[in-house]
Amino acid sequence: MIQKLINEIVKKDAPIVVGLDPTLKFIPKDILDKCFEEYGVNLKGAAEAVWLFNKGIVDATYDLIPAVKPQSAMYEQFGVPGVEVFKRTVDYCKSKGLIVIGDVKRGDIGSTSAAYAIGHLGSIEIAGKTFLPFDEDFATVNPYLGTDGVKPFVEVCNSNDRGIFVLVKTSNPSSGEFQDRIIDGKPLYEHVADKVNEWGAMSMDGDYSNVGAVVGATYPEQGKILREKMPKTFILVPGYGAQGGKGADLVHFFNKDGLGAIINSSRGIIAAYQNEKYASFGDAGFADASRQAVLDMKADIKSAL
Amino acid sequence: MIQKLINEIVKKDAPIVVGLDPTLKFIPKDILDKCFEEYGVNLKGAAEAVWLFNKGIVDATYDLIPAVKPQSAMYEQFGVPGVEVFKRTVDYCKSKGLIVIGDVKRGDIGSTSAAYAIGHLGSIEIAGKTFLPFDEDFATVNPYLGTDGVKPFVEVCNSNDRGIFVLVKTSNPSSGEFQDRIIDGKPLYEHVADKVNEWGAMSMDGDYSNVGAVVGATYPEQGKILREKMPKTFILVPGYGAQGGKGADLVHFFNKDGLGAIINSSRGIIAAYQNEKYASFGDAGFADASRQAVLDMKADIKSAL
Repeated sequence: MIQKLINEIVKKDAPIVVGLDPTLKFIPKDILDKCFEEYGVNLKGAAEAVWLFNKGIVDATYDLIPAVKPQSAMYEQFGVPGVEVFKRTVDYCKSKGLIVIGDVKRGDIGSTSAAYAIGHLGSIEIAGKTFLPFDEDFATVNPYLGTDGVKPFVEVCNSNDRGIFVLVKTSNPSSGEFQDRIIDGKPLYEHVADKVNEWGAMSMDGDYSNVGAVVGATYPEQGKILREKMPKTFILVPGYGAQGGKGADLVHFFNKDGLGAIINSSRGIIAAYQNEKYASFGDAGFADASRQAVLDMKADIKSAL
Repeated sequence: MIQKLINEIVKKDAPIVVGLDPTLKFIPKDILDKCFEEYGVNLKGAAEAVWLFNKGIVDATYDLIPAVKPQSAMYEQFGVPGVEVFKRTVDYCKSKGLIVIGDVKRGDIGSTSAAYAIGHLGSIEIAGKTFLPFDEDFATVNPYLGTDGVKPFVEVCNSNDRGIFVLVKTSNPSSGEFQDRIIDGKPLYEHVADKVNEWGAMSMDGDYSNVGAVVGATYPEQGKILREKMPKTFILVPGYGAQGGKGADLVHFFNKDGLGAIINSSRGIIAAYQNEKYASFGDAGFADASRQAVLDMKADIKSAL
């Protein structure tokens, strides 16, 4: 699967993933009003507004980008109707040729991780028939439980041609509380990176592994170290834009082949029309604003590399 | 919320939580056949079988136990219909007076953890109306992202009278890979425990905090240390039964007040009828077998304490 992602990145000349992380305050009033009228002021009405909003953004950007990253939390906050729209979004994005990274940050003991892996990346057999429950292409995985929490995902990567990104150094301000603590002379995130290399060796796909890593754009120094430490690992880089990561910070996340990283922006793209810079698009032009924001992000990253 | 859980534990004289972690192989053939006939051989049919199975076990045990712990992965593996049954199970258990611990192991950067906290424990405002998306009483939380991944959950604990259990030392064989690594003279799980104390102080509810901890029954020595280190923290103890934890191992997880811990059993209860010991109940008696397994577990724990 990582080779498919690389092919799309090369084809579209854009190491960019758009984070589909909708909240109600990002959605134009007209869309909300329409959905509340049709479905009621309730979780279903809100979830349907998320769907129309997502569809607008995907339709306006899918030809420019290789992948999207819907964040599960933003859908779970709307209960079952929200999860239904998560699934609808996954399916729609795939129908538009996009690769879908499910940002679910799951991870548990072995038998439970196996169920998460089946649910998000794998297939389940029911009385002899096979079904794909959520059917994302990649999922993000939390490493706190160690190898037996991650391995069931790696097995599904191999059996179903999928991929994962394991949290190594996250983009948030307090990520250092545990991740930066020194163990045997190096920070925890480097120990996690060692394991990512080990897990990754079990699922190579061309020059890179289906087992990638998450390293935040907000920590460029650590990004540089981790880039060198995990040469065959693709890095998913959140934290660009709204969280403070800048284009110039990103250069160290890439390998000399110009590959090895994909940069996520969520709010900076999907809520672009609410940004002064794109205000001329207006509410009705929210999707066109997101397209312009993708083009600008692409230029920013190009100029940095 | 922790005081409510304590009240129920005392009232039912049972520091026990039943893990509602269904897989198809635990469900009697008659239930599967009935649901496949009514809903089809598909994710919906499987999810409805899970629902009937859960309902049978809840109806047979709710008067004996204070709480249940549905494991999200086991529902997500059936896609959207599975998540719908997760929610139906939460609602049904609450209608029977049970406290529901959503074993979701979520955790992310601040704004995303806030959405998870809203989704599972909190409420969301939609055009002036308030909705409870999944409405569990407790959720399990992964600490890898540090304070800003946990604090949004603590805030919801305070505003909505809910609770969380933070992963400290998990029950699985590889939990030590990262959790046992020594930082400044003590293992990572003790550093996490220090933070649990810190987070817990923000949400006290009687003698205990709404911020609890997960410590596996499979690590009784660490349980003893962590019990002493976190005197006001309620400990959710998985790993009893099928994972190998024994009644005698549990004594160290409790405080001198006889409180401070709640022991989970999943497979050992819900799939009891498949165990030789309870084979006489047969498939049709699966729920009665789970009731007997709860009574036996209660006696085992009583004799150990």
